[in-house]
Amino acid sequence: MISFNPLEKLVVELSKLPGIGEKTATRLALYILKTPLTYAHSLSQSILDVKNKIQLCSQCYNLTPINPCAICTHAQRDKTLLCIVEEPGDLLAIERTRTFRGQYHILHGTLSPLEGILPEHLKIKELLMRLQKENISEIILAMNPSVEGEATVLYLIKLLKPLSIKLSRIAQGIPMGGDLEYMDIATIGNAIENRTPL
Amino acid sequence: MISFNPLEKLVVELSKLPGIGEKTATRLALYILKTPLTYAHSLSQSILDVKNKIQLCSQCYNLTPINPCAICTHAQRDKTLLCIVEEPGDLLAIERTRTFRGQYHILHGTLSPLEGILPEHLKIKELLMRLQKENISEIILAMNPSVEGEATVLYLIKLLKPLSIKLSRIAQGIPMGGDLEYMDIATIGNAIENRTPL
Repeated sequence: MISFNPLEKLVVELSKLPGIGEKTATRLALYILKTPLTYAHSLSQSILDVKNKIQLCSQCYNLTPINPCAICTHAQRDKTLLCIVEEPGDLLAIERTRTFRGQYHILHGTLSPLEGILPEHLKIKELLMRLQKENISEIILAMNPSVEGEATVLYLIKLLKPLSIKLSRIAQGIPMGGDLEYMDIATIGNAIENRTPL
Repeated sequence: MISFNPLEKLVVELSKLPGIGEKTATRLALYILKTPLTYAHSLSQSILDVKNKIQLCSQCYNLTPINPCAICTHAQRDKTLLCIVEEPGDLLAIERTRTFRGQYHILHGTLSPLEGILPEHLKIKELLMRLQKENISEIILAMNPSVEGEATVLYLIKLLKPLSIKLSRIAQGIPMGGDLEYMDIATIGNAIENRTPL
């Protein structure tokens, strides 16, 4: 094997990223090699910063450089509305829509007894403690529509129902741009069952 | 906009890479955040190394940490066989196949008069100087089958024919796993014209 040492090393490192194969990694490495040195410096530094400066918010368990995070301390956000999500990526996806102006709580996973992930492995105890301290009037469950997501929703409903806080979950149905003809039966079934009154 | 500073910064930097959109960049950034610190360090350092340690080989113009490069100085490689490619990525693609054991010459582009890329912008003068010094008996043209690739091939044939060195170009045809039914007419045309005698 010919040794282009640093270039090959970078291809190997980039290939470890999810969804990046050897070909894509090579394309990215050659691109990094071509662009000005400032970009390489900036990318390299960002990677270190994200590891060194990001921590979990002690309130919502989101990833944040300051604790408590900017969402928890934001004056204009609704402190009585709480959206529960699986992962920080889900929070980012919801924030991108700019349609939700309440608080979040990140579970950091979903229940999956087969994989040994039980309620005590998620931030559920922390959620109950928040509900005691904070004045939450509505909880939105925003789990993904998967087997584990459903299991987590069912568990949380059982747990939260007695607290007499308004409880809802995000709608399941046909996504924007979706085509009924190619949609799976579960999605169409949900869309019909949860039809919106006009 | 909420500021998760370092995380958002990394998403922005990753989004600048070719073929990486905001969603993929977010996924990669969250992955980097989750993996051990050693990986972040290693990735970060590889990016800097590739910029600081890689140079062009003064013989074949490949990207290399040592000059002349490992291919040019390799004792077991055929010094009389020269493969001309457009970019370093093409060389890597050919090396991956382990079917070619000769030398390379990288043009660093293709002729494109409309974009102002003329022969003097490519490593063609350098190629002619090599052919004078080195004892090359066969040249393989490995340009991509594009308009610019074809133009470059035609230009090189005109330039190299008088030197009475054996000249060939890589085969064009149906790729492995390809389906005649879905292949474009130019590819099928080429495949029939360049049929292999059995």
